[in-house]
Amino acid sequence: MFYHVKELQYHAKPDRPDPVFAKKLQEILGGQFGEISVMMQYLFQGWNTRGNGKYKDLLMDTGSEEIAHVEMIATMIARLLDGAPDVEVEDAIKDPVIAAIIGGSNPQQAIVSGLGAMPVDSVGNRWTASYIAASGNLLADFRANLNAESQGRLQVARLYEMTNDAGVRDMLSWLLARDTMHQNQWYAAICELEEKENIVVPSTFPRELEKQQVSYTLFNLSQGDASAEGRWASGPSMDGYGTFNYVDRPIAFGSVPHLDPAPPYIYDTPLWALRHSDDPPEPNLK
Amino acid sequence: MFYHVKELQYHAKPDRPDPVFAKKLQEILGGQFGEISVMMQYLFQGWNTRGNGKYKDLLMDTGSEEIAHVEMIATMIARLLDGAPDVEVEDAIKDPVIAAIIGGSNPQQAIVSGLGAMPVDSVGNRWTASYIAASGNLLADFRANLNAESQGRLQVARLYEMTNDAGVRDMLSWLLARDTMHQNQWYAAICELEEKENIVVPSTFPRELEKQQVSYTLFNLSQGDASAEGRWASGPSMDGYGTFNYVDRPIAFGSVPHLDPAPPYIYDTPLWALRHSDDPPEPNLK
Amino acid sequence: MFYHVKELQYHAKPDRPDPVFAKKLQEILGGQFGEISVMMQYLFQGWNTRGNGKYKDLLMDTGSEEIAHVEMIATMIARLLDGAPDVEVEDAIKDPVIAAIIGGSNPQQAIVSGLGAMPVDSVGNRWTASYIAASGNLLADFRANLNAESQGRLQVARLYEMTNDAGVRDMLSWLLARDTMHQNQWYAAICELEEKENIVVPSTFPRELEKQQVSYTLFNLSQGDASAEGRWASGPSMDGYGTFNYVDRPIAFGSVPHLDPAPPYIYDTPLWALRHSDDPPEPNLK
Amino acid sequence: MFYHVKELQYHAKPDRPDPVFAKKLQEILGGQFGEISVMMQYLFQGWNTRGNGKYKDLLMDTGSEEIAHVEMIATMIARLLDGAPDVEVEDAIKDPVIAAIIGGSNPQQAIVSGLGAMPVDSVGNRWTASYIAASGNLLADFRANLNAESQGRLQVARLYEMTNDAGVRDMLSWLLARDTMHQNQWYAAICELEEKENIVVPSTFPRELEKQQVSYTLFNLSQGDASAEGRWASGPSMDGYGTFNYVDRPIAFGSVPHLDPAPPYIYDTPLWALRHSDDPPEPNLK
Amino acid sequence: MFYHVKELQYHAKPDRPDPVFAKKLQEILGGQFGEISVMMQYLFQGWNTRGNGKYKDLLMDTGSEEIAHVEMIATMIARLLDGAPDVEVEDAIKDPVIAAIIGGSNPQQAIVSGLGAMPVDSVGNRWTASYIAASGNLLADFRANLNAESQGRLQVARLYEMTNDAGVRDMLSWLLARDTMHQNQWYAAICELEEKENIVVPSTFPRELEKQQVSYTLFNLSQGDASAEGRWASGPSMDGYGTFNYVDRPIAFGSVPHLDPAPPYIYDTPLWALRHSDDPPEPNLK
Amino acid sequence: MFYHVKELQYHAKPDRPDPVFAKKLQEILGGQFGEISVMMQYLFQGWNTRGNGKYKDLLMDTGSEEIAHVEMIATMIARLLDGAPDVEVEDAIKDPVIAAIIGGSNPQQAIVSGLGAMPVDSVGNRWTASYIAASGNLLADFRANLNAESQGRLQVARLYEMTNDAGVRDMLSWLLARDTMHQNQWYAAICELEEKENIVVPSTFPRELEKQQVSYTLFNLSQGDASAEGRWASGPSMDGYGTFNYVDRPIAFGSVPHLDPAPPYIYDTPLWALRHSDDPPEPNLK
Repeated sequence: MFYHVKELQYHAKPDRPDPVFAKKLQEILGGQFGEISVMMQYLFQGWNTRGNGKYKDLLMDTGSEEIAHVEMIATMIARLLDGAPDVEVEDAIKDPVIAAIIGGSNPQQAIVSGLGAMPVDSVGNRWTASYIAASGNLLADFRANLNAESQGRLQVARLYEMTNDAGVRDMLSWLLARDTMHQNQWYAAICELEEKENIVVPSTFPRELEKQQVSYTLFNLSQGDASAEGRWASGPSMDGYGTFNYVDRPIAFGSVPHLDPAPPYIYDTPLWALRHSDDPPEPNLK
Repeated sequence: MFYHVKELQYHAKPDRPDPVFAKKLQEILGGQFGEISVMMQYLFQGWNTRGNGKYKDLLMDTGSEEIAHVEMIATMIARLLDGAPDVEVEDAIKDPVIAAIIGGSNPQQAIVSGLGAMPVDSVGNRWTASYIAASGNLLADFRANLNAESQGRLQVARLYEMTNDAGVRDMLSWLLARDTMHQNQWYAAICELEEKENIVVPSTFPRELEKQQVSYTLFNLSQGDASAEGRWASGPSMDGYGTFNYVDRPIAFGSVPHLDPAPPYIYDTPLWALRHSDDPPEPNLK
Repeated sequence: MFYHVKELQYHAKPDRPDPVFAKKLQEILGGQFGEISVMMQYLFQGWNTRGNGKYKDLLMDTGSEEIAHVEMIATMIARLLDGAPDVEVEDAIKDPVIAAIIGGSNPQQAIVSGLGAMPVDSVGNRWTASYIAASGNLLADFRANLNAESQGRLQVARLYEMTNDAGVRDMLSWLLARDTMHQNQWYAAICELEEKENIVVPSTFPRELEKQQVSYTLFNLSQGDASAEGRWASGPSMDGYGTFNYVDRPIAFGSVPHLDPAPPYIYDTPLWALRHSDDPPEPNLK
Repeated sequence: MFYHVKELQYHAKPDRPDPVFAKKLQEILGGQFGEISVMMQYLFQGWNTRGNGKYKDLLMDTGSEEIAHVEMIATMIARLLDGAPDVEVEDAIKDPVIAAIIGGSNPQQAIVSGLGAMPVDSVGNRWTASYIAASGNLLADFRANLNAESQGRLQVARLYEMTNDAGVRDMLSWLLARDTMHQNQWYAAICELEEKENIVVPSTFPRELEKQQVSYTLFNLSQGDASAEGRWASGPSMDGYGTFNYVDRPIAFGSVPHLDPAPPYIYDTPLWALRHSDDPPEPNLK
Repeated sequence: MFYHVKELQYHAKPDRPDPVFAKKLQEILGGQFGEISVMMQYLFQGWNTRGNGKYKDLLMDTGSEEIAHVEMIATMIARLLDGAPDVEVEDAIKDPVIAAIIGGSNPQQAIVSGLGAMPVDSVGNRWTASYIAASGNLLADFRANLNAESQGRLQVARLYEMTNDAGVRDMLSWLLARDTMHQNQWYAAICELEEKENIVVPSTFPRELEKQQVSYTLFNLSQGDASAEGRWASGPSMDGYGTFNYVDRPIAFGSVPHLDPAPPYIYDTPLWALRHSDDPPEPNLK
Repeated sequence: MFYHVKELQYHAKPDRPDPVFAKKLQEILGGQFGEISVMMQYLFQGWNTRGNGKYKDLLMDTGSEEIAHVEMIATMIARLLDGAPDVEVEDAIKDPVIAAIIGGSNPQQAIVSGLGAMPVDSVGNRWTASYIAASGNLLADFRANLNAESQGRLQVARLYEMTNDAGVRDMLSWLLARDTMHQNQWYAAICELEEKENIVVPSTFPRELEKQQVSYTLFNLSQGDASAEGRWASGPSMDGYGTFNYVDRPIAFGSVPHLDPAPPYIYDTPLWALRHSDDPPEPNLK
């Protein structure tokens, strides 16, 4: 169960309205790696964790924090839209800044949400649960989390450079710090599990049931052998169970597949139509 | 530029048709962490890599291999659908197996694709580019890749348990091995970059511009303190720049947000309608 | 900011596993009118409300409760999947119940989420923010809320009939009661605003700027005049500003539209190609 | 069955081209609450109505009218795009108006539709049937309709303010009036059903099967008690069957959920990996 | 403007309920090539046609008919769901037919639409405007139409085989005939335009501006030369302006692309991190 | 299996950066008829083709080429974004060109992809497999392909007009030529199959099972008889099996549908609530 307090986790007040930035900031609210995504990802991972303990608690701690981040950014966007000018194309003749606002702002933030934040990204795609992962396997999921925090902090850093509004930057500096913590914490949790389980997910699948002769092989399928220089092409494998090897000219292990014709009730191209065109045509229909 | 050879990378021949499994196998073809996803993710990462070298080559090697995996699974699915019985509900009365096939197979694999594979997941959601990531930052993206291979191998392992068809299992054992390699290779590439860059993405954002006082803090926002036991709650941080700390009773740093009313042209709820209901109503419309 | 307690708002424990019902129950978790939808809808409406007060507080109270409902249903689904049999098509021969489970359960709840709840509906569509509304106009939005609670309670009632598991029904009876309250509360809030504002949204748009001669007219555009019997076809309009009237044989007020040809750089069908086919063809390409 | 006449229901002719407004106007054509949505919503509700009569006829009357509204707006958009300048970035140097057009218009209206309307919203999201509701329960659905007409008229009013083109405003004044009627008519139909059925949907679900002790309770889950002032917090409930009450400090009725571990074939995190990290590691793989 | 008559264009009455077929039939209602798709595609093409005349009229004739087809199939689906048994998993033990119904029917047709048709396909994907095309170029669009009618009639034929209900087959035989006409009519319209314009769309783009040396070349990019046998590999081209030729071993005409590094504010992988791993690391962070 | 060479199939180098055009060019990369669509469409058609031979080989040849086109356009977009100015709204005051760039570029190409191409269209919609068709029937699918190449070449021609960058135009001239070939080749393949099979898909469905009396009838469902002039309204049908005829005043062949009430467990509007409102109300709830 959840309780809400009215105070924001951190300040979310820009120095001045900026509808163009309000559009961009949507990326870290409702984009693929925005706060809605991490909030939903951590909560679902937490709720699905079988067996309680510190990992489940960590997921619920962080998931709850991310709802607060959604709240902060939503508040910031509403304020960036505050007093947004009601501009028409005719006005642009007077001022290139107005031209930029006409082009660079999201019309739905006026027409649809009435100067409010929306659960969308910076080009207006609605948030979708296709963005998140919760598999039940914690090592897999913590890797999803580390990725999400990495992509997310990267986007915050890029947005930081796109504004010089001190209030906006202040909030972004908070998010950057929290993403530093969250990368660190998932990293720590991953190390712990890798140490116990080994690095390959899932660690419990019997090793002898996989085709082990290609478990450590790099197939050079793109011309040039720059990839042979990498750590992944020779030496012991990272999981400690094999040796990397590099196949410069990979060949096919399978054969050319032949699919049988479909049965008549499927109404595919009939077989006689696949014959050579200089053969006499068969009668097709009465 | 790409060249195709007709031979499959590995065998893709089931022992017998199984339309129920054909539906399930779609998950690793067109699902969130299926082969289309990794194929598109690696190719886009490769094409967008600025500066050539071993990482770009590795991405193109692996992306090219994943197209071959899409091909193998598509072939397997078509063969699992081969000779699928043309069953009606009336037939079920004779045989629970037919009942299971009616319920457990994907009707689109007959109606839409004519007994062929589709770019969809195991419940029929069409593949979407919302699944993939290509940010330009290699450390972030390799973490996306390690996640994708972890989730993907997990799903293959689960599917392996859901069939006892030796031909299907043979192909899955190939995919399991390749996913072992791909987890190992992204792991190796990540280690290399982390060693050079540090673990926090992006590593080049100036540390002093983030709110450093909360860069290593775990806020206990979910009742109970199980999460305080973790490596992430005390001791040096994983990035080596700080010390983890745990805040048992986190408070808000921001204040209660007040948003100004919207301008009249937005046609929000008018201010006078937000007054107390026992005040006399204002005239609203002429 | 949000705090989580580990206890559920209400019990979520089925009497026995039932993967077929676990699939159906997803509808009120991640479907169009499921708990994720109302949670996100109320939170976004609350965060965007300009001017604080009782309405904003009510939205945050209810939005916070809905997160707890997501949590309860997610927990219930995981338990319904507990110990779900690992069945294959071959097993169906023994037992029609197994056949039903094969067909009636969602394969992603095994392959993707590892026997956990997913943010999807009962056929597997991922939750999308296209489901929710937050316009900034409270009367409009409370109508969206009343609709959501009506559709939602209807679905819970239908699901109640589809199971005889006492534990599941116990949780559903909680949700039914809460939806009763939520319909009542939005109804109360709507009445209050309608009394102040009048019923037509937005109430502040100047009445004289709309084409008032058709503001209370029912056009009979579907053959038969059953609709003339309704309250909406005669008598004073509901908003008190007009009189309903019924036009039995509605005519067009506009004319046949003619669109000018597109400029050449659009490469539409050329004008000369739209001439009569028995005219001599113009030379088209050098 | 449907017949088409070439004349538009009302005029749809702008005074001059305006590609920036053509992009915005898409919102009420192909957006969440645009004319395609109400057209499809009413038609599907009508087709699914079990038992004919005035409600079904009203749905078909209004659904048929909405197709005409789609037609009018599509025509208006094509004309707004008429003679849209073929501008390049280089041209912007001469004129901020051109800069605004470059930024504020939808490139697909040139590249994809050849200066025609598209079934998309004002940021280019394709129309999706996720927007509509047709449940078979008329009271629920009429609430969906009242909401759709409220959100829709609000958006039209906002768009009215964003242009000073007399021709565009003339068409919008028609739509505003029709939305006034449609809000009135669904309101009338709702009143009729509420009077017969009571206000809670579905009205036929046995009252004693819901957890009646919380059917009229407001849980104060967001800090502060502003919501206690509302009509919904005390006094008789709107449905006449209970009394509203307010719980200032709501507690959990359920307990902390414990989920059993998943079976081995799910390949979740193994139990031994969830033990304390300072325990000796178990051997994990052969 | 549109008028509706209550009579269906053709009968839509099954001999008996069949919820499993009701699910499958959704494919031609709300699927990629279902009736909603052709209805919307023809109407939008008609509304966007610049310059009136027989083509626009034909589009409006056929678009109006398709609304009637949506209506017929929606009616048929509601009747197939009529009296659908309210079955639970426990019932399956008695009867494999019930098992088949549990698995083979769409739960949303009970939970969401109350035994009504939905704007979805046979696996429950919501209809999306991503399915349709309306480019303004009639030859391109008539090809889209011929394709849609071909795919659509194919699906109807497959569905015809999946039932032996005489009432359902009667309706499908109507749709098969209408699709025969629609294929014929778009074929006729295409022939007319091709005769005037030539076959390559758009016909007005200046021929000398394309890279004509590869305008009639087949590149053999898939191992094996079976494709060299085709009409497309030699002889005069179909458009009459060139000669087909076959390149057995195609080479690249471009060079290896090198992308410049991104500027620092993008926070990509820093250049020094791309150096060899055995070089001494640069200091990365202050 | 696939091999990659590093060289591009053709040059992809612009004369200068142009982020506004980079956004537009996305249409033919990740749009409905962009290169990802044809690549996936041809590959899936090829993999699903039952029975090998020249058609399958042609599909694999062309599908492989389209991957190279995705690669070329992705490279071009990255270069168009190269050195894109890092502009803020404040900068616009100095220069309308900056205003145009602010408005006309896609913010995700900076925030999300770090100046790289994305699998999206020109307004940012993510690529979806809903765009493609692979039915197993070659004649149907080749028509889908001819349509895709027609729509695609049309879009390339429009984009060609929107830039004067010689490098961009050089690449587009290559794509225009290849689309000329691909239209020619699918046209040739279609002619071959039509000659053997007849033009109506599927050709093998027994003609006597369709309602032949309306197989060649044009119903005039849109007022006005311009469509009667067309080749499709009289004379022998294109398939050679009938005679076109034109019905000026089409009537309904079916009757008014009546749907039975839903069973009680569906909780639809109760029957007594559908009675006349001036009847005395029945007691509804205990």
